[in-house]
Amino acid sequence: MIAQDSLKEALRKNKLKSETFRNLEYLRFTDDFKDIPRGTALFKDMVIWGYPHIGRIFQLSTGIPEQFSAPFWVEEKVDGYNVRVFMHKGEIYALTRGGYVCAFTTDRVPDFVDPTFFEDNPDLVLCMEVAGPENPYVEESPPHVKEDVKFFLFDIMRKNHQGFLPYREKLRLIEKYNLPSVERYGLYTPERIEELKALLRRLNEEKREGVVLKEDSERDKRVKYITSYANLNDIRITSLNMLGLPADYYTNRLLRLALFIEEEGVEKTQELFRELGEAFLSGLFQACKMAREEGKVHRVFRCRFRKRENALIFMEQMKHASVHIQVNQLSLRQEGEFWLLEFEKVFLNMTGLLGHILRGGSLID
Amino acid sequence: MIAQDSLKEALRKNKLKSETFRNLEYLRFTDDFKDIPRGTALFKDMVIWGYPHIGRIFQLSTGIPEQFSAPFWVEEKVDGYNVRVFMHKGEIYALTRGGYVCAFTTDRVPDFVDPTFFEDNPDLVLCMEVAGPENPYVEESPPHVKEDVKFFLFDIMRKNHQGFLPYREKLRLIEKYNLPSVERYGLYTPERIEELKALLRRLNEEKREGVVLKEDSERDKRVKYITSYANLNDIRITSLNMLGLPADYYTNRLLRLALFIEEEGVEKTQELFRELGEAFLSGLFQACKMAREEGKVHRVFRCRFRKRENALIFMEQMKHASVHIQVNQLSLRQEGEFWLLEFEKVFLNMTGLLGHILRGGSLID
Repeated sequence: MIAQDSLKEALRKNKLKSETFRNLEYLRFTDDFKDIPRGTALFKDMVIWGYPHIGRIFQLSTGIPEQFSAPFWVEEKVDGYNVRVFMHKGEIYALTRGGYVCAFTTDRVPDFVDPTFFEDNPDLVLCMEVAGPENPYVEESPPHVKEDVKFFLFDIMRKNHQGFLPYREKLRLIEKYNLPSVERYGLYTPERIEELKALLRRLNEEKREGVVLKEDSERDKRVKYITSYANLNDIRITSLNMLGLPADYYTNRLLRLALFIEEEGVEKTQELFRELGEAFLSGLFQACKMAREEGKVHRVFRCRFRKRENALIFMEQMKHASVHIQVNQLSLRQEGEFWLLEFEKVFLNMTGLLGHILRGGSLID
Repeated sequence: MIAQDSLKEALRKNKLKSETFRNLEYLRFTDDFKDIPRGTALFKDMVIWGYPHIGRIFQLSTGIPEQFSAPFWVEEKVDGYNVRVFMHKGEIYALTRGGYVCAFTTDRVPDFVDPTFFEDNPDLVLCMEVAGPENPYVEESPPHVKEDVKFFLFDIMRKNHQGFLPYREKLRLIEKYNLPSVERYGLYTPERIEELKALLRRLNEEKREGVVLKEDSERDKRVKYITSYANLNDIRITSLNMLGLPADYYTNRLLRLALFIEEEGVEKTQELFRELGEAFLSGLFQACKMAREEGKVHRVFRCRFRKRENALIFMEQMKHASVHIQVNQLSLRQEGEFWLLEFEKVFLNMTGLLGHILRGGSLID
């Protein structure tokens, strides 16, 4: 558990905030605080620890021998958002990375996770990626999810504990409860780098995000490695809202791209240059067009709920949590067995700046 | 003059620093402070005001009618560094934009400015751009300066006064003293936007930086506009040291490029995409290569001095003023009528980060 003194200090420093979801009251850490990761959530009688940061390597040939001294498991890194799913007083909830109980994810968990799992294992927490074209947070989506969303398990935690269940224990539970999991590529030794590189080339061609590597050892050391496709795609997807992101979002991805190519010696460099330039500029052109024609830079999201009430709660959550973004509900209607919610995010920084510039305004920089 | 209270407050807040050049002692504002621009320099009996910020417009068709209500003078914006040149107790000095007396610029002024100007006009300050392949600060250089540096006058100030002499007065002094000036394209009316756009297209093809527009009116309103060539070139030149710059350096230039193309409808967009991608990645590839082969990311500068002593003072100034950059003198030798100084700037952020990554290190971001 967390010492009372730390909690008081965190509250005073505004790192710990009180939240409510329906009748459930809890506290969440809005930032890393001392050794407590952001997104750690405190309920009356237990703590769900935040999902820890995972270090990134930029080149496999040097990164693998430097990071690992034992064989490591290789798993797909799915491009979605990270949640922690658990049962509390008979109800199943899903926490976002930031530690909010998410009304959308919570609504949809039962479609993907057999509740028997939590009835049998009430103290376990499933760490999952939610991904797909109809998710409300991330504009990207893996190619293998064609509609709606899917849930992908990658780790299991225990309530009140940091760290994860051993890998083989996770495998046993996945099998026993038929849990949906990220793709697993097996155990690699540090000597099998060429095979791993070949795997990454395939994932890159298949437009997947990358891999997480987990050492098969007591210390459970992890690192991640991202494909050049994913880096380019991040730029392509976000350039519409370039001013809404920390500017080093782009310099980081440029560096990763350069190091990927430096290692791989990608042949068709001219084509890659073209793709990179287009990734940056096409979103900006679209933003200019929107600002000129519609007076706002925005993107429409759509997602499916089981319960209408959850969609309404979700809209309130989004409006409450968004900074520099205005969230507008567009429609909510029943379609088959779902309630289909459509909403838009208006990117206020882009809208404001492009409006000023296109009206002929000047800027001092 | 500046109120004593302001000076004390600025000193206390570390916005005002004491400097020495040979026997000359002075204070300089290291940042904008209240209404005092960064680079304002205080000498015992007078103030040289800092050169003010000039707003930037991103599109001519809307920017010109929005910004100007009278005809405006159009001048080339030269890609170099901004200095203020003046005489003090019989000696001529040059201040950088940041308010340092620069040993290099001061050394070279007499090659380009007739000292008679200052003997006749001891209270005037020449605002000039210094540009060329052998300048010690800026890695870019205008195409029309083939070697060494040149000085280009664009404004004249008075000691102890903010603001500039009237444009026609400047023209008279340029003519009378044969002062080297930026190219001047004459007086435009806000109705002549198409002509101005044609001028900018020509400057873009000639690989020039852009223009400064100065309203022919009491208020002397100014704005600047930069060619797409210059934006691309900024990215190309600096990507070697991408982590040494504020990350919004790049997002700003991307936005300018997009707005330039949005207005001009540049045809060969595919080629522009390719150029942009290459501008970002070629410098990063070069940085990786340097980090791998030489253990450091660096760039060599060379410049010509009249006096050996000034080169030595300049090296001390550079070492003193550089942050995140290590400055190493490589050579100083006589060549014809000049002392040729060669030095390198080692970019410590890039060197450190790439070294870590290429050794297989991981990063949390």
